[in-house]
Amino acid sequence: MKIALDAMGGDFAPTSTVAGAVAALEKDHDIEIILVGDQARIEKELAHIEVATALRKRFTIHHASQIVDMADSAIDAVRRKKDSSISRAVDLLANGEAEALVSAGHTGAFVVAATLKLRTLPGIDRPGIATVMPTEANPFLLIDAGANVDSEPKHLLQFGIMGSVYSSKVIGRKNPRVGLMSIGTEAGKGNELTKAAYEELSRARINFIGNVEGHDLFNRPVDVVVCDGFVGNVILKTSESLAGAIFSWLKRELKKDLVRQTGALLAKEAFYTIRRKTNTEEYGGMPLLGVNGICIKAHGNSSSKAIKNAIRVAREAVAHKVNPHIVEEISRHGQS
Amino acid sequence: MKIALDAMGGDFAPTSTVAGAVAALEKDHDIEIILVGDQARIEKELAHIEVATALRKRFTIHHASQIVDMADSAIDAVRRKKDSSISRAVDLLANGEAEALVSAGHTGAFVVAATLKLRTLPGIDRPGIATVMPTEANPFLLIDAGANVDSEPKHLLQFGIMGSVYSSKVIGRKNPRVGLMSIGTEAGKGNELTKAAYEELSRARINFIGNVEGHDLFNRPVDVVVCDGFVGNVILKTSESLAGAIFSWLKRELKKDLVRQTGALLAKEAFYTIRRKTNTEEYGGMPLLGVNGICIKAHGNSSSKAIKNAIRVAREAVAHKVNPHIVEEISRHGQS
Repeated sequence: MKIALDAMGGDFAPTSTVAGAVAALEKDHDIEIILVGDQARIEKELAHIEVATALRKRFTIHHASQIVDMADSAIDAVRRKKDSSISRAVDLLANGEAEALVSAGHTGAFVVAATLKLRTLPGIDRPGIATVMPTEANPFLLIDAGANVDSEPKHLLQFGIMGSVYSSKVIGRKNPRVGLMSIGTEAGKGNELTKAAYEELSRARINFIGNVEGHDLFNRPVDVVVCDGFVGNVILKTSESLAGAIFSWLKRELKKDLVRQTGALLAKEAFYTIRRKTNTEEYGGMPLLGVNGICIKAHGNSSSKAIKNAIRVAREAVAHKVNPHIVEEISRHGQS
Repeated sequence: MKIALDAMGGDFAPTSTVAGAVAALEKDHDIEIILVGDQARIEKELAHIEVATALRKRFTIHHASQIVDMADSAIDAVRRKKDSSISRAVDLLANGEAEALVSAGHTGAFVVAATLKLRTLPGIDRPGIATVMPTEANPFLLIDAGANVDSEPKHLLQFGIMGSVYSSKVIGRKNPRVGLMSIGTEAGKGNELTKAAYEELSRARINFIGNVEGHDLFNRPVDVVVCDGFVGNVILKTSESLAGAIFSWLKRELKKDLVRQTGALLAKEAFYTIRRKTNTEEYGGMPLLGVNGICIKAHGNSSSKAIKNAIRVAREAVAHKVNPHIVEEISRHGQS
């Protein structure tokens, strides 16, 4: 399985991406990686890493002369920087030279390039970013986490179906519970968008459990949470920010005197367990569901470990035939 | 200063409300409280509490025969239950028999009753719920936290002006920084609503710092965060849910063995500090800004302590003349 990696995307690229690619190749023997980006810089990174000859055969470099900058507008970036690493990585997918792509770069450019060059799957109007939200007992999938800013009810319906397929086929949940993010759990609660989406989701062949609200998210078992990309992005970033703030605060409080420091030392395994289970590096990649190709977005601040895990997510999505399953479910919905 | 208290509103009413009223009277000597609700039940609660004679003179009971149930629709509740404790409490405000009201009951009925009976302030189209979000260094005001579900740019502008006035006059922030909740900090980022609201807020006589996003909320200093009520409610409830989930999880992890338990015991002051500073009971009340009267919403699960603090919030809002200041700022904006 060939996976194209945007070697220049992300805050720590190409160091993180090249190291992540090597780690992924060491872990999974059935993949090959195409490093897309500035050949000289990639080779320089590779020179710092000891790579076994057998492993070296499993990656190639595909030169791309440009890099999308975080300050670029998404559409401009795709239109004007035709030889950017992200555009070229998408081209490899579009041409059939790769089966999946991974990028930790500019989210907007990633979404626009994938949507324009790969097109959406039959029956899908807009792709949605799905992201796994860690919780103590039951991590859930949030879709759309920010591919779109203004959505219509039918888009939310499609996110629900795609999220359900991904949860069941890749994450392995049986008959995944799909909730609609709203304010108030009763059917009539919400804004114009969610009230109309509620009707559509009720008629879909998914296990729709109705509205879920913020109070439920980390308490009530739900497998897929559907919302528009604006709300989803707010939930994702607010949650990351709040969790980070709580732990930083706790750390400072625990350092304030020797008694607390001793206590923290004794209790450290408790903190480590939570940190491990909520580490976004472990989740690594967010699939852009609905485009005609497997495209995985890694966090902008991805470490090599996060890149390695995003590559794993790409591999799983291909292996579990996510897109054929989505097409099948959407087509069934259209016929019913 | 007379404050009307919806004695029947909230999960633990009337026990929590009556006890909260007594505690508020003990604390602040310049207030009188009108307990609005079922006279027999209120008197029964009072019978359980030892109340000094001097203090007893400072409250009266205003009988109301009905209670808005959490399952009622907001508009139906206000139309059909004319003798509900919340409606009667608003009546007291409308008639000038009270200067402020506090309710821990049905949020929708509270907003609808206040808006219909009191009307909005001149220049304000819709009221917004403002809530203080606790953080380590710089608690911020979030507006609208859920009074409305669908908002227009001018509503967000008005929320920004009202939030700025409240932050400055009641919370005491100098030249409060007002941010617009969006996805991405650049001016062009966001959905249709926030892009248009950005323009309006830029022209207002407030210290508008532009877009803020979820990643900033608990890290970057901002005094007022403006958003539509759907997004605000999602932020409020998601944050409460996540913070609660993290601490419950931590508690379970810390109990897993004797070493961790010992550590937790030594470090307990660190946990207590954070719990105290993030305790919603301390914040107590969320003002519904923009209606012609001081209306404070307390959390549905308010304890007597939370009710006491919500009464304090009501008292402060009256004392600091929030509404005259809002009218003045809105009128200035209209003239500029």
